[in-house]
Amino acid sequence: MQEPNLEELREQLDEVNIEVLKWINKRGELVKKIGEIKKAQGIKVFDPVREREMLNHIVDHHEGPFESSTIEHLFKEIFKAAKELQEDDYRKTLLV
Amino acid sequence: MQEPNLEELREQLDEVNIEVLKWINKRGELVKKIGEIKKAQGIKVFDPVREREMLNHIVDHHEGPFESSTIEHLFKEIFKAAKELQEDDYRKTLLV
Repeated sequence: MQEPNLEELREQLDEVNIEVLKWINKRGELVKKIGEIKKAQGIKVFDPVREREMLNHIVDHHEGPFESSTIEHLFKEIFKAAKELQEDDYRKTLLV
Repeated sequence: MQEPNLEELREQLDEVNIEVLKWINKRGELVKKIGEIKKAQGIKVFDPVREREMLNHIVDHHEGPFESSTIEHLFKEIFKAAKELQEDDYRKTLLV
């Protein structure tokens, strides 16, 4: 089998980028829903214990090629973005 | 149809986290391969024009719930991690 050339690999990379995007957005939608339920139930939205559990679960499933510390860093950034999303929603409810 | 409860949404979130992880790692593998081909061909690995094109392609496909600026930030972090991966490989070849 011939090795894929640079152009083919770049096309694959563009497709993979869109998959990453799709799942990050799917994650955002879920986190928004969870935030709404928590607020309706009067539960504090940010839960550091649950966040640590999620990170452990992710790192347990990690098989490379990145270092686990890199994966932790990336997911912390993704979590932070989702928290900002929940806070935006909260601010909007205060303005209604 | 009954709305999913908090526990169900959290299980979905754990699954989605693993999908994000899977695609970030798939991206890492592809970027490593691209880096190897570029090095073999004597092409500079980091290409800011191509990076900008990828970001534009991603933002064009973005439909929320995050702000486009947040998506750009997250992908810049993902790109940075991949660059570090290519540099690690390069350092290893120097040590052989």
